[in-house]
Amino acid sequence: MYEKIKQHIRDIKDFPKPGIVFKDITPALADGQCLQQIVDIFYNRFKGAKIDKIAVIESRGFLLGAPLAYKLGCGIVLLRKPGKLPSEKIKEYYNLEYGSAALEVHSDSIKTGERVLIIDDLLATGGTTEAACKLIKRLKGNIIAMAFLIELSELSGSSKLSSYGDVVSFLKY
Amino acid sequence: MYEKIKQHIRDIKDFPKPGIVFKDITPALADGQCLQQIVDIFYNRFKGAKIDKIAVIESRGFLLGAPLAYKLGCGIVLLRKPGKLPSEKIKEYYNLEYGSAALEVHSDSIKTGERVLIIDDLLATGGTTEAACKLIKRLKGNIIAMAFLIELSELSGSSKLSSYGDVVSFLKY
Repeated sequence: MYEKIKQHIRDIKDFPKPGIVFKDITPALADGQCLQQIVDIFYNRFKGAKIDKIAVIESRGFLLGAPLAYKLGCGIVLLRKPGKLPSEKIKEYYNLEYGSAALEVHSDSIKTGERVLIIDDLLATGGTTEAACKLIKRLKGNIIAMAFLIELSELSGSSKLSSYGDVVSFLKY
Repeated sequence: MYEKIKQHIRDIKDFPKPGIVFKDITPALADGQCLQQIVDIFYNRFKGAKIDKIAVIESRGFLLGAPLAYKLGCGIVLLRKPGKLPSEKIKEYYNLEYGSAALEVHSDSIKTGERVLIIDDLLATGGTTEAACKLIKRLKGNIIAMAFLIELSELSGSSKLSSYGDVVSFLKY
Protein backbone atom coordinates (compact mmCIF):
# COMPACT_ATOMS: atom_id res chain seq x y z
CA MET A 1 0.00 0.00 0.00
CA TYR A 2 2.87 2.37 0.80
CA GLU A 3 4.30 1.76 -2.67
CA LYS A 4 0.96 2.67 -4.22
CA ILE A 5 0.89 5.94 -2.29
CA LYS A 6 4.48 6.66 -3.35
CA GLN A 7 3.37 6.38 -6.97
CA HIS A 8 1.10 9.39 -6.31
CA ILE A 9 3.92 11.59 -4.96
CA ARG A 10 6.02 13.40 -7.53
CA ASP A 11 9.39 15.12 -7.38
CA ILE A 12 9.50 18.78 -8.45
CA LYS A 13 13.05 19.97 -9.00
CA ASP A 14 14.21 23.43 -7.86
CA PHE A 15 11.08 24.24 -5.81
CA PRO A 16 10.72 26.44 -3.86
CA LYS A 17 14.39 27.29 -4.44
CA PRO A 18 17.17 26.04 -6.75
CA GLY A 19 18.71 22.81 -5.48
CA ILE A 20 15.63 21.68 -3.54
CA VAL A 21 13.69 18.65 -4.78
CA PHE A 22 10.13 19.16 -3.55
CA LYS A 23 7.92 16.15 -2.74
CA ASP A 24 4.55 17.12 -4.23
CA ILE A 25 1.71 15.23 -2.56
CA THR A 26 -1.08 16.92 -4.55
CA PRO A 27 -1.55 13.92 -6.88
CA ALA A 28 -2.04 11.71 -3.79
CA LEU A 29 -4.61 14.12 -2.37
CA ALA A 30 -6.39 14.34 -5.74
CA ASP A 31 -7.07 10.59 -5.72
CA GLY A 32 -9.96 9.90 -3.35
CA GLN A 33 -8.92 6.31 -2.63
CA CYS A 34 -5.30 7.30 -2.03
CA LEU A 35 -6.39 10.10 0.33
CA GLN A 36 -8.46 7.62 2.35
CA GLN A 37 -5.55 5.18 2.50
CA ILE A 38 -3.22 7.88 3.77
CA VAL A 39 -5.59 9.07 6.50
CA ASP A 40 -6.34 5.47 7.51
CA ILE A 41 -2.62 4.74 7.94
CA PHE A 42 -2.43 7.57 10.49
CA TYR A 43 -5.74 6.49 12.05
CA ASN A 44 -4.67 2.90 12.51
CA ARG A 45 -1.40 4.00 14.09
CA PHE A 46 -3.02 6.37 16.62
CA LYS A 47 -6.54 5.07 17.25
CA GLY A 48 -5.49 3.58 20.59
CA ALA A 49 -3.36 6.51 21.70
CA LYS A 50 -6.10 8.50 23.50
CA ILE A 51 -5.24 11.70 21.66
CA ASP A 52 -7.09 14.82 22.87
CA LYS A 53 -5.87 17.28 20.25
CA ILE A 54 -4.33 17.05 16.80
CA ALA A 55 -1.95 19.98 16.28
CA VAL A 56 -1.81 20.73 12.54
CA ILE A 57 1.00 22.70 10.92
CA GLU A 58 -0.01 25.25 8.26
CA SER A 59 -0.88 24.52 5.49
CA ARG A 60 -0.33 20.98 4.24
CA GLY A 61 -0.55 19.61 7.76
CA PHE A 62 -4.15 20.84 7.76
CA LEU A 63 -4.96 18.51 4.85
CA LEU A 64 -3.88 15.34 6.67
CA GLY A 65 -4.54 16.37 10.28
CA ALA A 66 -8.12 17.56 9.82
CA PRO A 67 -9.45 14.27 8.40
CA LEU A 68 -7.53 12.39 11.09
CA ALA A 69 -9.08 14.54 13.83
CA TYR A 70 -12.51 13.97 12.31
CA LYS A 71 -11.96 10.20 12.26
CA LEU A 72 -10.47 10.04 15.77
CA GLY A 73 -13.06 12.44 17.23
CA CYS A 74 -10.33 14.81 18.46
CA GLY A 75 -10.18 18.57 18.38
CA ILE A 76 -7.81 20.47 16.10
CA VAL A 77 -5.20 22.99 17.23
CA LEU A 78 -3.89 25.30 14.50
CA LEU A 79 -0.17 26.07 14.28
CA ARG A 80 -0.12 29.00 11.90
CA LYS A 81 2.23 31.44 10.25
CA PRO A 82 2.46 34.87 11.94
CA GLY A 83 -0.53 37.18 11.70
CA LYS A 84 -3.10 34.55 10.77
CA LEU A 85 -4.57 33.68 14.17
CA PRO A 86 -6.97 36.32 15.46
CA SER A 87 -6.95 35.87 19.24
CA GLU A 88 -4.33 35.88 22.03
CA LYS A 89 -1.34 33.78 20.96
CA ILE A 90 2.31 32.83 21.48
CA LYS A 91 5.09 32.55 18.89
CA GLU A 92 8.25 30.52 18.19
CA TYR A 93 10.85 31.27 15.51
CA TYR A 94 12.71 28.56 13.61
CA ASN A 95 15.09 27.94 10.70
CA LEU A 96 13.82 26.20 7.58
CA GLU A 97 15.66 24.10 5.03
CA TYR A 98 15.24 27.24 2.87
CA GLY A 99 14.98 30.47 4.94
CA SER A 100 13.53 31.27 8.38
CA ALA A 101 10.00 31.66 9.69
CA ALA A 102 7.79 31.46 12.77
CA LEU A 103 4.73 29.62 14.03
CA GLU A 104 1.97 30.86 16.32
CA VAL A 105 -0.71 29.12 18.39
CA HIS A 106 -3.71 30.46 20.30
CA SER A 107 -2.89 30.60 24.00
CA ASP A 108 -6.20 28.94 24.96
CA SER A 109 -6.00 26.11 22.44
CA ILE A 110 -4.53 23.41 24.69
CA LYS A 111 -5.42 22.61 28.30
CA THR A 112 -2.74 21.51 30.76
CA GLY A 113 -1.88 17.84 30.28
CA GLU A 114 -3.89 17.29 27.11
CA ARG A 115 -2.46 14.54 24.91
CA VAL A 116 -1.34 16.16 21.67
CA LEU A 117 -0.39 14.60 18.33
CA ILE A 118 1.45 16.89 15.89
CA ILE A 119 0.78 16.28 12.19
CA ASP A 120 2.55 17.55 9.10
CA ASP A 121 2.98 16.19 5.61
CA LEU A 122 6.78 16.04 5.56
CA LEU A 123 9.70 15.86 7.98
CA ALA A 124 12.87 17.48 6.62
CA THR A 125 15.28 19.11 9.11
CA GLY A 126 12.59 19.18 11.80
CA GLY A 127 12.83 22.92 12.43
CA THR A 128 9.15 23.64 11.94
CA THR A 129 8.10 20.71 14.08
CA GLU A 130 10.53 21.66 16.84
CA ALA A 131 8.89 25.13 16.96
CA ALA A 132 5.52 23.36 17.17
CA CYS A 133 6.79 21.23 20.07
CA LYS A 134 8.05 24.30 21.92
CA LEU A 135 4.69 26.03 21.53
CA ILE A 136 2.80 22.99 22.82
CA LYS A 137 5.14 22.59 25.78
CA ARG A 138 4.71 26.28 26.66
CA LEU A 139 0.95 25.60 26.79
CA LYS A 140 1.67 22.56 29.03
CA GLY A 141 0.40 20.06 26.49
CA ASN A 142 1.63 16.46 26.62
CA ILE A 143 3.24 15.67 23.25
CA ILE A 144 2.50 12.03 22.47
CA ALA A 145 3.97 11.92 18.98
CA MET A 146 4.83 13.81 15.82
CA ALA A 147 3.65 12.06 12.68
CA PHE A 148 4.46 12.68 9.03
CA LEU A 149 3.47 11.10 5.76
CA ILE A 150 6.99 11.58 4.38
CA GLU A 151 10.42 11.68 6.00
CA LEU A 152 13.58 12.82 4.21
CA SER A 153 15.81 10.56 6.26
CA GLU A 154 19.19 12.02 5.33
CA LEU A 155 18.25 15.38 6.91
CA SER A 156 18.11 13.72 10.37
CA GLY A 157 14.98 15.56 11.51
CA SER A 158 13.85 12.67 13.69
CA SER A 159 16.98 12.79 15.85
CA LYS A 160 16.37 16.50 16.51
CA LEU A 161 12.79 15.78 17.60
CA SER A 162 13.04 12.51 19.51
CA SER A 163 13.45 14.21 22.90
CA TYR A 164 9.96 15.72 22.53
CA GLY A 165 8.06 12.47 21.85
CA ASP A 166 7.71 9.61 19.37
CA VAL A 167 8.58 10.46 15.77
CA VAL A 168 6.49 8.49 13.27
CA SER A 169 6.79 8.62 9.49
CA PHE A 170 5.30 6.29 6.92
CA LEU A 171 7.17 6.95 3.65
CA LYS A 172 10.93 7.34 3.89
CA TYR A 173 13.16 8.77 1.17
CA MET B 1 -27.38 21.67 16.35
CA TYR B 2 -26.57 24.81 14.36
CA GLU B 3 -27.04 26.87 17.53
CA LYS B 4 -24.58 24.63 19.36
CA ILE B 5 -22.00 25.15 16.64
CA LYS B 6 -22.60 28.90 16.74
CA GLN B 7 -21.72 28.85 20.44
CA HIS B 8 -18.24 27.67 19.40
CA ILE B 9 -17.66 30.56 16.97
CA ARG B 10 -16.41 33.80 18.47
CA ASP B 11 -16.27 37.37 17.21
CA ILE B 12 -12.84 39.03 17.15
CA LYS B 13 -13.11 42.78 16.64
CA ASP B 14 -10.71 44.69 14.34
CA PHE B 15 -9.10 41.60 12.80
CA PRO B 16 -7.37 41.45 10.39
CA LYS B 17 -7.98 45.19 9.99
CA PRO B 18 -9.77 47.90 12.00
CA GLY B 19 -13.52 47.81 11.46
CA ILE B 20 -13.66 44.11 10.53
CA VAL B 21 -15.36 41.68 12.93
CA PHE B 22 -13.69 38.32 12.31
CA LYS B 23 -15.62 35.09 12.83
CA ASP B 24 -13.12 32.83 14.60
CA ILE B 25 -13.96 29.15 14.10
CA THR B 26 -10.95 27.83 16.01
CA PRO B 27 -13.02 27.02 19.15
CA ALA B 28 -15.37 24.96 16.97
CA LEU B 29 -12.43 23.08 15.44
CA ALA B 30 -10.87 22.52 18.88
CA ASP B 31 -13.96 20.62 20.07
CA GLY B 32 -13.86 17.12 18.57
CA GLN B 33 -17.62 16.61 18.72
CA CYS B 34 -18.32 20.01 17.19
CA LEU B 35 -15.83 19.34 14.38
CA GLN B 36 -17.58 16.06 13.58
CA GLN B 37 -20.98 17.77 13.58
CA ILE B 38 -19.75 20.43 11.17
CA VAL B 39 -18.23 17.96 8.72
CA ASP B 40 -21.33 15.74 8.93
CA ILE B 41 -23.59 18.70 8.04
CA PHE B 42 -21.62 19.11 4.81
CA TYR B 43 -21.51 15.35 4.25
CA ASN B 44 -25.27 14.91 4.64
CA ARG B 45 -25.91 17.78 2.23
CA PHE B 46 -23.61 16.42 -0.51
CA LYS B 47 -23.46 12.64 -0.07
CA GLY B 48 -25.84 12.11 -2.99
CA ALA B 49 -24.30 14.71 -5.28
CA LYS B 50 -21.75 12.44 -6.99
CA ILE B 51 -18.88 14.84 -6.35
CA ASP B 52 -15.56 13.92 -8.01
CA LYS B 53 -13.36 16.62 -6.48
CA ILE B 54 -13.54 18.90 -3.47
CA ALA B 55 -11.79 22.19 -4.26
CA VAL B 56 -10.48 23.63 -1.01
CA ILE B 57 -9.55 27.29 -0.57
CA GLU B 58 -6.36 28.03 1.41
CA SER B 59 -6.14 27.78 4.37
CA ARG B 60 -9.30 27.42 6.46
CA GLY B 61 -11.11 25.73 3.57
CA PHE B 62 -8.53 22.94 3.91
CA LEU B 63 -9.73 22.25 7.46
CA LEU B 64 -13.34 21.58 6.45
CA GLY B 65 -12.85 20.34 2.90
CA ALA B 66 -10.24 17.68 3.65
CA PRO B 67 -12.38 15.75 6.18
CA LEU B 68 -15.34 16.06 3.82
CA ALA B 69 -13.31 14.63 0.93
CA TYR B 70 -12.14 11.79 3.17
CA LYS B 71 -15.72 10.99 4.18
CA LEU B 72 -17.14 11.28 0.65
CA GLY B 73 -14.23 9.37 -0.90
CA CYS B 74 -13.42 12.28 -3.26
CA GLY B 75 -10.12 13.74 -4.28
CA ILE B 76 -8.95 17.17 -3.12
CA VAL B 77 -7.96 20.06 -5.41
CA LEU B 78 -5.91 22.79 -3.74
CA LEU B 79 -6.70 26.44 -4.47
CA ARG B 80 -3.65 28.18 -3.06
CA LYS B 81 -2.10 31.59 -2.65
CA PRO B 82 0.54 32.49 -5.26
CA GLY B 83 3.87 30.69 -5.13
CA LYS B 84 2.74 27.74 -3.02
CA LEU B 85 1.91 25.17 -5.70
CA PRO B 86 5.01 23.57 -7.21
CA SER B 87 3.90 22.36 -10.64
CA GLU B 88 2.32 23.92 -13.75
CA LYS B 89 -0.58 26.17 -12.72
CA ILE B 90 -3.02 28.94 -13.63
CA LYS B 91 -3.89 32.08 -11.63
CA GLU B 92 -6.86 34.42 -11.01
CA TYR B 93 -6.74 37.75 -9.19
CA TYR B 94 -9.57 39.02 -6.98
CA ASN B 95 -10.54 41.76 -4.55
CA LEU B 96 -10.99 40.91 -0.89
CA GLU B 97 -13.15 42.53 1.76
CA TYR B 98 -9.77 43.88 2.96
CA GLY B 99 -7.17 44.17 0.18
CA SER B 100 -6.51 42.17 -3.01
CA ALA B 101 -4.97 38.78 -3.69
CA ALA B 102 -4.82 35.84 -6.10
CA LEU B 103 -5.47 32.11 -6.17
CA GLU B 104 -3.67 29.43 -8.15
CA VAL B 105 -4.52 25.84 -9.09
CA HIS B 106 -2.46 23.09 -10.70
CA SER B 107 -3.37 22.80 -14.39
CA ASP B 108 -3.70 19.02 -14.19
CA SER B 109 -5.83 18.93 -11.04
CA ILE B 110 -9.28 18.67 -12.67
CA LYS B 111 -10.31 16.56 -15.66
CA THR B 112 -12.85 17.87 -18.16
CA GLY B 113 -16.39 17.51 -16.83
CA GLU B 114 -15.46 16.43 -13.31
CA ARG B 115 -18.08 17.38 -10.73
CA VAL B 116 -16.48 19.87 -8.35
CA LEU B 117 -17.62 21.14 -4.95
CA ILE B 118 -15.87 24.28 -3.67
CA ILE B 119 -15.43 24.51 0.12
CA ASP B 120 -14.44 27.42 2.32
CA ASP B 121 -15.18 28.33 5.91
CA LEU B 122 -16.83 31.69 5.29
CA LEU B 123 -18.64 33.54 2.50
CA ALA B 124 -18.23 37.31 2.71
CA THR B 125 -18.22 39.32 -0.54
CA GLY B 126 -17.57 36.17 -2.59
CA GLY B 127 -14.46 37.51 -4.30
CA THR B 128 -12.22 34.61 -3.34
CA THR B 129 -14.81 32.04 -4.32
CA GLU B 130 -15.46 33.76 -7.65
CA ALA B 131 -11.74 33.46 -8.43
CA ALA B 132 -11.98 29.77 -7.48
CA CYS B 133 -14.94 29.34 -9.85
CA LYS B 134 -13.08 31.01 -12.71
CA LEU B 135 -10.09 28.71 -12.19
CA ILE B 136 -12.26 25.61 -12.18
CA LYS B 137 -14.14 26.70 -15.29
CA ARG B 138 -10.84 27.36 -17.08
CA LEU B 139 -9.94 23.72 -16.30
CA LYS B 140 -13.37 22.67 -17.67
CA GLY B 141 -14.60 21.41 -14.33
CA ASN B 142 -18.35 21.22 -13.66
CA ILE B 143 -19.07 23.35 -10.58
CA ILE B 144 -21.87 21.65 -8.67
CA ALA B 145 -21.92 23.91 -5.64
CA MET B 146 -19.98 26.25 -3.37
CA ALA B 147 -20.47 25.48 0.32
CA PHE B 148 -19.56 27.46 3.42
CA LEU B 149 -19.95 26.94 7.12
CA ILE B 150 -20.69 30.66 7.62
CA GLU B 151 -22.30 33.29 5.41
CA LEU B 152 -22.20 37.02 6.19
CA SER B 153 -25.55 37.66 4.49
CA GLU B 154 -25.42 41.44 4.29
CA LEU B 155 -22.34 41.31 2.04
CA SER B 156 -24.41 39.64 -0.72
CA GLY B 157 -21.72 37.14 -1.74
CA SER B 158 -24.27 34.53 -2.75
CA SER B 159 -25.84 36.75 -5.41
CA LYS B 160 -22.39 37.29 -6.95
CA LEU B 161 -21.79 33.53 -7.10
CA SER B 162 -25.19 32.08 -8.03
CA SER B 163 -24.47 32.07 -11.77
CA TYR B 164 -21.62 29.57 -11.19
CA GLY B 165 -23.64 26.94 -9.27
CA ASP B 166 -25.57 26.36 -6.05
CA VAL B 167 -24.49 28.45 -3.07
CA VAL B 168 -24.94 26.62 0.23
CA SER B 169 -24.23 28.02 3.70
CA PHE B 170 -25.21 26.61 7.06
CA LEU B 171 -24.75 29.42 9.57
CA LYS B 172 -25.98 32.85 8.54
CA TYR B 173 -25.09 36.12 10.28
